[in-house]
Amino acid sequence: MAKGALALLIHGGTENWSPQRWKQRFDEVCPDRPVVLLPDAAFDPAAIHYAAVWKPAPGELAAFPNLRVIFNLGAGVDALMADASLPKVPLVRVSVGDLTSRMTEYVVLHVLMHHRQEPYLRASQRAKRWAPKAQWPASVISVGVMGLGTLGANAAGALKHLGFRVSGWSRSVRQIDGIECFCGKEQLDAFLRRTDILVCLLPLTPDTRHILNRGVFAKLNRDSPLQAPVLINAGRGGLQNEADILQCLDDGTLGAVSLDVFVQEPLPADSPFWTHPKVMLTPHNAADTDPDEISKYVARQIERFEAGGVLENVVDPKRGY
Amino acid sequence: MAKGALALLIHGGTENWSPQRWKQRFDEVCPDRPVVLLPDAAFDPAAIHYAAVWKPAPGELAAFPNLRVIFNLGAGVDALMADASLPKVPLVRVSVGDLTSRMTEYVVLHVLMHHRQEPYLRASQRAKRWAPKAQWPASVISVGVMGLGTLGANAAGALKHLGFRVSGWSRSVRQIDGIECFCGKEQLDAFLRRTDILVCLLPLTPDTRHILNRGVFAKLNRDSPLQAPVLINAGRGGLQNEADILQCLDDGTLGAVSLDVFVQEPLPADSPFWTHPKVMLTPHNAADTDPDEISKYVARQIERFEAGGVLENVVDPKRGY
Repeated sequence: MAKGALALLIHGGTENWSPQRWKQRFDEVCPDRPVVLLPDAAFDPAAIHYAAVWKPAPGELAAFPNLRVIFNLGAGVDALMADASLPKVPLVRVSVGDLTSRMTEYVVLHVLMHHRQEPYLRASQRAKRWAPKAQWPASVISVGVMGLGTLGANAAGALKHLGFRVSGWSRSVRQIDGIECFCGKEQLDAFLRRTDILVCLLPLTPDTRHILNRGVFAKLNRDSPLQAPVLINAGRGGLQNEADILQCLDDGTLGAVSLDVFVQEPLPADSPFWTHPKVMLTPHNAADTDPDEISKYVARQIERFEAGGVLENVVDPKRGY
Repeated sequence: MAKGALALLIHGGTENWSPQRWKQRFDEVCPDRPVVLLPDAAFDPAAIHYAAVWKPAPGELAAFPNLRVIFNLGAGVDALMADASLPKVPLVRVSVGDLTSRMTEYVVLHVLMHHRQEPYLRASQRAKRWAPKAQWPASVISVGVMGLGTLGANAAGALKHLGFRVSGWSRSVRQIDGIECFCGKEQLDAFLRRTDILVCLLPLTPDTRHILNRGVFAKLNRDSPLQAPVLINAGRGGLQNEADILQCLDDGTLGAVSLDVFVQEPLPADSPFWTHPKVMLTPHNAADTDPDEISKYVARQIERFEAGGVLENVVDPKRGY
């Protein structure tokens, strides 16, 4: 019996691979299964049981009457969840060790750059100034991680290993060794008050949209060795109120920010973030996903599903992630 | 019976503290002991049993006939070892957890900056270019740590925790979990051939002077995801041949360097390192020592020594560290 076909909707390709390269790779990891790179007029939509997608057009997935599972090729599913016509089948998001490690690299790098005054040291070099400044140890800096899923928990552990005080905040109760965990709206203020460097790895949902706003920044620890609290957002641009960030940088509520994500991407050329002296920005590349790992992950899940097993990392429509 | 006096030779102060502040702090941690800030004409040199020193003048320590122990207030003792008139008493170097943690922060930060193409990303921001580049995982990058004492072993462990392949090289045989250890001159080439990012934390001795030279750089791994190998030196300036570094950056033997130390410090204003686009330099502040921790460490060692105990971290004159 022929295995159910896998459709690929990867218009324009991902950061690293073209749609054709994804097709070739899925052919390799799904050797007995038809793999269709869409659009493909020769193929019957009713034969499609699985879809692996990257930024599909709204409504596009509704065209497959026998769809059983949708695999998103990234960790964030906020754009898919906003599609009211999305078929009511399990939606699986990527969770592979490779993506997790890369995100942890990004978080550790940016925490250390702020902690060790890298912008000041680079400016000193440009000015040919030999001017060491007093440096505080990691043990007096509190890093607060918002979002304690796979990504947040891993990043928190790496920061702890370097000697930082680490706490975390999540929607539901979590327990992580060595990390003081806060949860829910009622514990958000206590979490913020102790935080010198705020790292955001939350999923974007109706509950978290614009959660990074002046009200939150104003509650961060004002009594820390850092001149003012720091924000690092590698979740989604929709989590942040960008006007608030800029105003808070200018009035000293925030000392500096690292942003990997923006409301509009690519960031428009006239955005003030590009040239703001207190902003370190990256082009949404904190955690590029390794296509090899992801294609194997999808193939493995389909095999397990067809053998009667349970899908992993299925999005809860009520939570939105 | 009065306890033996402790002399402080801290001319000009350290990065963070004035000589007077050191005196005050040693008075606190050695409550029953005379603490003398030199020069002090009123004090009998014969009463001095201990000296805590920071960059003393050559010959200065020979003035104390009853000296029992010298404490260097930093980890590197190369300048003291070069003083032929240094009294033949135990010389203790600083080894406190705080200094070790700070050095590990520096190493992790600079490895990640090179690994994650920070100079490219900062240049892209300045040019308002949204231009993500393919990024490799830590698991394909080999970091090689030269020097596997307290500092090197700790830094190697932190890099391993982030997923890098880590190997180490030292004068004598070492075994560290998860780190492939090489030792001695006969294993240096094998160590270099597998190394993409070379981190140097060696002590400066006659054996290691100018060990960072073209011959070594040319043996680093040419077949790595990095465009060319990277050097990070946070040991001593005397370890590096600076002309070789500049030439190797220019001819592509090295792709980039991070330097915290220089042959001449402060780095002269006309040094080409300041403006070289492939150089990230810092003003010898990779691991500022916390005066509080150090003064307690010295006081503890003196108490133990007077009670008949063993001094820790005594320099071996034959090894030179």
